Amino acid sequence: MAGRAAGLGVKLRPHLKTAKSAEVARVATAGQFSGITVSTLAEARYFLAHGFADITYAVGLAPARIEEALALVRDGAKLNVLTDNSAVAAELARRAAAASIPRPLGVLIEIDCGDGRGGVLPDAQELLKLAALLDAPNLLLAGVLTHAGHSYGCGSAEAIAQVAEQERAAAALAAERLRGAGYTCETVSVGSTPTATHARDLRGVTEMRPGVYMFGDLDQVGLDSLPLERVAVSVLASVIGVYPDRVLIDAGGLALSKDTSAQRHGTDIGYGLVMNVQGELLPGAHVAKANQEHGIVRGLKAAIVPGDRLRVLPNHICMTAAAHPGYYVVDAGTEVLARWPRVNGWEQWS
Amino acid sequence: MAGRAAGLGVKLRPHLKTAKSAEVARVATAGQFSGITVSTLAEARYFLAHGFADITYAVGLAPARIEEALALVRDGAKLNVLTDNSAVAAELARRAAAASIPRPLGVLIEIDCGDGRGGVLPDAQELLKLAALLDAPNLLLAGVLTHAGHSYGCGSAEAIAQVAEQERAAAALAAERLRGAGYTCETVSVGSTPTATHARDLRGVTEMRPGVYMFGDLDQVGLDSLPLERVAVSVLASVIGVYPDRVLIDAGGLALSKDTSAQRHGTDIGYGLVMNVQGELLPGAHVAKANQEHGIVRGLKAAIVPGDRLRVLPNHICMTAAAHPGYYVVDAGTEVLARWPRVNGWEQWS
Repeated sequence: MAGRAAGLGVKLRPHLKTAKSAEVARVATAGQFSGITVSTLAEARYFLAHGFADITYAVGLAPARIEEALALVRDGAKLNVLTDNSAVAAELARRAAAASIPRPLGVLIEIDCGDGRGGVLPDAQELLKLAALLDAPNLLLAGVLTHAGHSYGCGSAEAIAQVAEQERAAAALAAERLRGAGYTCETVSVGSTPTATHARDLRGVTEMRPGVYMFGDLDQVGLDSLPLERVAVSVLASVIGVYPDRVLIDAGGLALSKDTSAQRHGTDIGYGLVMNVQGELLPGAHVAKANQEHGIVRGLKAAIVPGDRLRVLPNHICMTAAAHPGYYVVDAGTEVLARWPRVNGWEQWS
Repeated sequence: MAGRAAGLGVKLRPHLKTAKSAEVARVATAGQFSGITVSTLAEARYFLAHGFADITYAVGLAPARIEEALALVRDGAKLNVLTDNSAVAAELARRAAAASIPRPLGVLIEIDCGDGRGGVLPDAQELLKLAALLDAPNLLLAGVLTHAGHSYGCGSAEAIAQVAEQERAAAALAAERLRGAGYTCETVSVGSTPTATHARDLRGVTEMRPGVYMFGDLDQVGLDSLPLERVAVSVLASVIGVYPDRVLIDAGGLALSKDTSAQRHGTDIGYGLVMNVQGELLPGAHVAKANQEHGIVRGLKAAIVPGDRLRVLPNHICMTAAAHPGYYVVDAGTEVLARWPRVNGWEQWS
């Protein structure tokens, strides 16, 4: 992905929502400008504590989180938050003006490039209204941000490339309009792993924010983001039951997640494909059903006994990894070389 | 559920896989015999530390967990484990014989009552072979256990009552066969919330192990286990975006889970129904789509602004609750009366 960003002439601000790990962030930012993207303020706090100060929180800011965002700036973060709503922008301006912070809180305006989730349309009048509201003390209109979530619905690399062009064009148009109205717009941010992988041209864009590419999963394999052999994370499970037509493993819905997104790429994917403990795919074997702590594996041709270990390649690693406190790092074999913790959840509980 | 158990003449051994909370366990065991059911040995360890010693671990035992089970007995647990496999039973006998434990480790034989997940059929020859293998030093053949998971596929209370009868009959037959062969079989355990709710007769059964009834969810409402008004847990979310056709909330797939089980009960359930912060259902409003940190709410008729809070009633609370470190306990209002932590995951990580 570093090569993709360099080739396209944009900065890489990797999204750590998938990995949620400082060790992974160090790999993902090696040779880059060290900026990162996060999906929760808990991640922002964690990554700041691990030396990552340039952070974009790429989920629309809830008013209840404004104080937490300002506190991160106070504690040294170069933080950008996101909104597309004038009431939130006005509240941000009010609260920031009253805050004592060493640098302004950056605000990105969210643009809808066709996904229909969050954002204002790039040609909407609302865009300039938001910019005016954000022109306030202790705030910095940092630029625009968009996410082509609809790239996940594409059936081919060609279709993804077209969505990537929509994503680019929407962000670039919004930035041009802001600049035309006299605002600075330093950051023009796009990103999703499929569009980052298949984009042909990112003229007018300054950075991209893919995240799931770091690990990959069966959905990304189906979307042609990477070959199956490069999916980096699997769930290690033990066989707890053997029957003529199925095998039970001790990894079910809680360990794998109930995400079914990859099922659209093939009929025999279920809740994940199955490998042996060395990481070799066992053709046809898949987790056909996932109860809370039970996975029902079908299609397994190899002889198997209770206690044997299997690896499950996940449908959607963002969901699967979130069920676990961290990663056991292995190389070719099964020896654990390191343990890399994750920052899960949304708040300090204890 | 206490009334159901009393009326049916069986003990209630509540399954804590859903709640995973000592405070909830104290409510669920009030007036009962204090035995509980768990789905992980991490739960067993946690509940033992909170004073619950009589524990059934109702997931088939992986050989790699035998030492952990024996350690729990050494530390004071009256633990029952589960298997349906003769290799595991033989390994259990070997390891238990070599252990120094103050009381035997109980073993339940898992019976398949028609669910087709784990278990030997109640009339299988294998049943007696397992009993013979478990007749070993430091092991106690505690009885039989079955789970009518197929009750979740029923379309009516009448159909669930029929599955409950299958569940009862299978467990009772297996117990009779063991006793007929000269084995003691103190425990005859059945259980799922749907069958516990709709069973008419539990002759031959000694205990039931429902769990999700403590909280309920939209799937259980659809299965007629409880009325919607009694679903006890919801996810509190903030509105982060407002659009003509939808509202964005900051609770997505990670906060709600991607479980879609309740969708079969209605077309407008999505990833959960939506209530106001007072807990009043907002008719038609549902989480139509769940991305990692975004929920897209459709069907909301009430006027809404960013910062408003909504509650999401979950599809499947076992999955949803597992995404959170614990519960904020509220009464009618929104004042937090207590915080009850959960024991998530499978192991001590740090």
